[in-house]
Amino acid sequence: MVRRPVTPVRVLDVDGTTARERPDRLVTEEPMEIRIQAPGAEPESVAVTMRTPGNDFELAVGFCVSEGILTDGAQLAEVAYCLGEEGEQEFNIVTLRVRGPYALGAPRHFGVNASCGLCGKATLDDLEVRCAPVADGPVVSRSTIASLPDRLRRAQRIFDETGGLHAAALFTPSDDLSVLREDVGRHNALDKVVGHAFLTGELPLADGVLLVSGRMSFEIVQKAAVAGIPILCAVSAPSSLAVAAAERFGQTLVGFVRGGGFNVYAGPQRVALDR
Amino acid sequence: MVRRPVTPVRVLDVDGTTARERPDRLVTEEPMEIRIQAPGAEPESVAVTMRTPGNDFELAVGFCVSEGILTDGAQLAEVAYCLGEEGEQEFNIVTLRVRGPYALGAPRHFGVNASCGLCGKATLDDLEVRCAPVADGPVVSRSTIASLPDRLRRAQRIFDETGGLHAAALFTPSDDLSVLREDVGRHNALDKVVGHAFLTGELPLADGVLLVSGRMSFEIVQKAAVAGIPILCAVSAPSSLAVAAAERFGQTLVGFVRGGGFNVYAGPQRVALDR
Repeated sequence: MVRRPVTPVRVLDVDGTTARERPDRLVTEEPMEIRIQAPGAEPESVAVTMRTPGNDFELAVGFCVSEGILTDGAQLAEVAYCLGEEGEQEFNIVTLRVRGPYALGAPRHFGVNASCGLCGKATLDDLEVRCAPVADGPVVSRSTIASLPDRLRRAQRIFDETGGLHAAALFTPSDDLSVLREDVGRHNALDKVVGHAFLTGELPLADGVLLVSGRMSFEIVQKAAVAGIPILCAVSAPSSLAVAAAERFGQTLVGFVRGGGFNVYAGPQRVALDR
Repeated sequence: MVRRPVTPVRVLDVDGTTARERPDRLVTEEPMEIRIQAPGAEPESVAVTMRTPGNDFELAVGFCVSEGILTDGAQLAEVAYCLGEEGEQEFNIVTLRVRGPYALGAPRHFGVNASCGLCGKATLDDLEVRCAPVADGPVVSRSTIASLPDRLRRAQRIFDETGGLHAAALFTPSDDLSVLREDVGRHNALDKVVGHAFLTGELPLADGVLLVSGRMSFEIVQKAAVAGIPILCAVSAPSSLAVAAAERFGQTLVGFVRGGGFNVYAGPQRVALDR
């Protein structure tokens, strides 16, 4: 069964004086398994993630790019939904067929064997192995950055219906919207954007301006660095480690883009204040 | 070094006409490793999670409760920060020492070996093994539910400073605030609440009313079900799978608690509309 990004439900709508049942629409959340398969080998499970159905192949590909499993478009032979026992497509399992051997990237349990070596720095060190610093990239005007949230909101479809999900959008330096993806998971929305770029041969995104609808966490900065994105904007607050990571990777990090203003936390040289 | 929940930074504050540097405060995001150690055995890594420092022991314990690793207070002998090579405390590794053997709970890669059996239902089936349906629990008045977000906001400390994190709060049916925890990760905030209850011998939370500051995902419902919480409220939208899970576990799920009203998505029998 094809999964839809919006699920209809009945809800009891209560306010100060009345209560009435009415139809409502929720953002769909479903698990999706990502598998990878080398020639002649059995598929191997990479991850199970909760996600909003839609752009599933981009999500699977973008996740594997972020994890360092996919680094080159030539590696990927095919992306497909799994076939069930009766031969029907299963829409919650996506298999990436690759042309040769692959490595499952940096382990998620980084530092497990290092005696007490775990800290923010260790994590960043681990990342730097995979991320070259991003390119100098474009300079973007103050007015362009301030305009991004309105551009995003106008383009968001599912949010309007459900109020329930995150968005990640990639803009050009002259503020054209390249791609917008939505998901219940903020990381997934960005994975879909990165997966789209991988599948269309656009990585690294050395001219890209990213806007995320919520907060900016370390993982968002990390995924953007792997994709080579130089300018990261968020409608809400960044975390301390997000700013530290952006500084380390040479990215520009802008937060609280709202009401015509914003805060620059890292890389101010890419923001033109005079236009 | 002790980690603080708020990190001071310098920021370039830009609006339509001016740009000035000023001090700002960000919510701290740091990795924390959770280890578990049986008598006579080496510590084993359970997870590495990004988190906001503070209530680290509660987070470690709550995470292990949610994962089904800790089920009974008598299992736990000690919770401690790891000691570094020089004997100093390391504040990003927490070790739970247990009194006997333990099992690492349901695998996170549920369904990996089941051929294409992955779907929301499979996930819920997997969960039901560990979750008895929650107790009938209390009935809460319309006015109490409507008042919860204001109560939460008044009690939030770090958010006021940084605008950057999630909160989970547990209330009694008569709307007394029992415990409030904050974190950059919404799951962590709830894990801290559950860990607090475990450490004070209050599980299951059969009279608890939970409020989360953002959206309600499947994982929040799942963690609340393991802790026995019957009434779940969110300031923002639930996902489709959150509602399906709440129905299955017999929980009441209330969303969009704002402006004096709210929507009941599951379990309306615990909401008294006439008071």
